[in-house]
Amino acid sequence: MANNAMALDSIFHALADPTRRAVIQRLSRGPATVGELAEPFNMALPSFMKHVGVLESTGLIRSRKRGRIRTCTLERKKLAAAERWFADQRAIWASRYQNLDSLLETLTGEDRES
Amino acid sequence: MANNAMALDSIFHALADPTRRAVIQRLSRGPATVGELAEPFNMALPSFMKHVGVLESTGLIRSRKRGRIRTCTLERKKLAAAERWFADQRAIWASRYQNLDSLLETLTGEDRES
Repeated sequence: MANNAMALDSIFHALADPTRRAVIQRLSRGPATVGELAEPFNMALPSFMKHVGVLESTGLIRSRKRGRIRTCTLERKKLAAAERWFADQRAIWASRYQNLDSLLETLTGEDRES
Repeated sequence: MANNAMALDSIFHALADPTRRAVIQRLSRGPATVGELAEPFNMALPSFMKHVGVLESTGLIRSRKRGRIRTCTLERKKLAAAERWFADQRAIWASRYQNLDSLLETLTGEDRES
């Protein structure tokens, strides 16, 4: 549980940056080299590599070097774990309304009986 | 678009903390006073209020003071906006596989014809 919370901390921290979100978005279309990923950004490569490092340390992406080319791939499972957190909150919210509905039904039923 | 990116930055930053996520989770069950929200945490009230402030500044929650009691409510729409970001990435990912499927179908079709 604590591990899961720490994982969510680092995933949400990683996603709180437009460059890193753009990298995730690009990798949703398929693997890409660091050069391809960096291309749309007006950013020095060392700065860009820091963003890649943050994403990789959270497990949101992984990379592999062949010769001088590093290719990055999205780790869908990690992204899904963060998305699940939202679904969990929605479920809590929905059950609350279901409870209110049941209460209303009970009250209307009692009304009818009286 | 830039505004939307800034909103996502601040929402994900706000969610990158276990106390703030716990507050959101509690408010998914319904409105609560700051006292009720702070109760499960072993934290000085000023520190806790900083977390409430971060959540409120992103628009994820809003609060209202009546007398000395401040009550907080979840802003579902803001949470939904962040959740939508994940759905968008999933859609990109899914369309990629659909494209691969179509390609495979075309290739198999060509195979059959030759």
